Amino acid sequence: MARDTAQAAVALGGGHGLHATLSALRRLHDDLTIDDLTAIVTVADNGGSSGRLRGEFGVLPPGDLRMALAALCGDDEWGRTWADVIQHRFAGQGEMNGHVVGNLLIVGLWELMGDHVRALDWVGRLLGAHGRVLPMATTPMDITARVRGTDPAAPDAVTVVSGQVEVATTAGQIESVALVPADPQACAEAVDAILAAEWVVLGPGSWFSSVIPHLMVPGLRQALADTQGRLVVVLNLEAQAGETTGFGPVDHLEALFEHAPDLTVHSVLVDSTALAIAGDHADGRAALDRAVTDRGARLVVADIAVPGEPRHDPDRLADAFRGIVDGV
Amino acid sequence: MARDTAQAAVALGGGHGLHATLSALRRLHDDLTIDDLTAIVTVADNGGSSGRLRGEFGVLPPGDLRMALAALCGDDEWGRTWADVIQHRFAGQGEMNGHVVGNLLIVGLWELMGDHVRALDWVGRLLGAHGRVLPMATTPMDITARVRGTDPAAPDAVTVVSGQVEVATTAGQIESVALVPADPQACAEAVDAILAAEWVVLGPGSWFSSVIPHLMVPGLRQALADTQGRLVVVLNLEAQAGETTGFGPVDHLEALFEHAPDLTVHSVLVDSTALAIAGDHADGRAALDRAVTDRGARLVVADIAVPGEPRHDPDRLADAFRGIVDGV
Repeated sequence: MARDTAQAAVALGGGHGLHATLSALRRLHDDLTIDDLTAIVTVADNGGSSGRLRGEFGVLPPGDLRMALAALCGDDEWGRTWADVIQHRFAGQGEMNGHVVGNLLIVGLWELMGDHVRALDWVGRLLGAHGRVLPMATTPMDITARVRGTDPAAPDAVTVVSGQVEVATTAGQIESVALVPADPQACAEAVDAILAAEWVVLGPGSWFSSVIPHLMVPGLRQALADTQGRLVVVLNLEAQAGETTGFGPVDHLEALFEHAPDLTVHSVLVDSTALAIAGDHADGRAALDRAVTDRGARLVVADIAVPGEPRHDPDRLADAFRGIVDGV
Repeated sequence: MARDTAQAAVALGGGHGLHATLSALRRLHDDLTIDDLTAIVTVADNGGSSGRLRGEFGVLPPGDLRMALAALCGDDEWGRTWADVIQHRFAGQGEMNGHVVGNLLIVGLWELMGDHVRALDWVGRLLGAHGRVLPMATTPMDITARVRGTDPAAPDAVTVVSGQVEVATTAGQIESVALVPADPQACAEAVDAILAAEWVVLGPGSWFSSVIPHLMVPGLRQALADTQGRLVVVLNLEAQAGETTGFGPVDHLEALFEHAPDLTVHSVLVDSTALAIAGDHADGRAALDRAVTDRGARLVVADIAVPGEPRHDPDRLADAFRGIVDGV
């Protein structure tokens, strides 16, 4: 349903979670509910093809940026073909094994143009993308985590784990995450997009390694405080082995506020089935409701998962976003 | 100058020589002298980025195909930018060092689509290319050469040198070249393009390793015999250290006919300065004229080089082609 006045939306995240958000939000872009869509992407990855390129070139890790661009590709043969191309992972047996075409293309454009944002805009033009993809910061960074109980022999000991991959797969319980360097320069265009947005979507995604890092970039945190845009937090469908083992919806939300106590949230969107299996349904929902309303936010429970699978359904997620945007 | 009826042209070659021909022929395409332009590219390279990719993936070497595509890029910001991108060579210090973005893109498209010609057509669409680029054959091949005198201690001994790079840089005098396998399957679309062409341009370029190999592919040789199209041979501006050390214009032409005695040539285009410095001007020209007219062809002498540099000038070469096409 198109509104009288279309609105700008920004999605913050990384990896498959952000891909899911963008796959939903592009539907709101197609039906003119939103007329301007920007993805802001975590750039702390240190694994796989991205990690290798980062190690060789000292560039931002391109993988999550590439995946976000592919999620926004034009809805025709041209856009879908180039999205397939940039997502293609080489099957070779040598030095190219595991590299992804779009990662190499993005790094090549960065070398050639010397401008992160301009280069990503060119990939967006190539794809006929329904929106813009920006890095959260213009210098690469690392994530560190204070983790309790990585060593079963010392369950109360806290150690510091470094690297997005290492944080995402840690044993033990993450107590907090931080960025190294602690004050990376936010991408100026990302700050502008948050300030200009009517809606800002945070999550779903790897909670400590892709979602919370956005709140640790001072410039983005300030923009989130200053914007008139309403923040929608999309909770994960399940705990993620490693970084959020044993986490329910309330735990996810609490982790967010522990890292950004002053964050103003408009709505918290959770999948009804995820909420049900998080514990006793009534209690789980009541606890989450309390946690949400304590922060002045509104809880929205909807069927947003692919039935029986731990991933968000783009059409259902789009319907839920439309409901929130239309104030239903 | 546009003709009443535009014509189709095919250029056979590889590397920088083919790039020069295409840079000229695209001007005839722009002014509607020719309405259909196809490049047919040697696929025997075993060096550099192409050689590494060929070794890892068993694919055709993409480098000369990429260079031909770049030569035909659209004449606007879009086409020029993507041409710069595909021509960009990584400056990294690790596994990507020396690889070229467009080579990786082409190999990715081949893996994804499993169709050489379709994939190259997609790169052509990306560039807004003024023509089509095809491989001479659809399986990679190697070049071998019988070389006399590679060992100064045995100046009359003939040895076999294998590999395009090794042939191009050999010591000694090349007596003949051959392909391994000897009968590669010609690219069907390349055969069709030759059969449909009014004009076929062969050379300039690395004579034994990029130009003559086209005559060694049985399907292309047959198409050159069968086509009504007129063959224009463009001679090199100078000898190439290694494969044609000491060669003058007549030697180049003779090498061609030794490999394809039945070849019918319409015109032989040579740069006036190259002809002058090939020896005593009058004698050099007289000898070349004899060699050309003996084959029923016409010698065209024109200023087609960048003054003082051993490379063809696209505008001058285009003027010379126009003169030949218009029968001037």
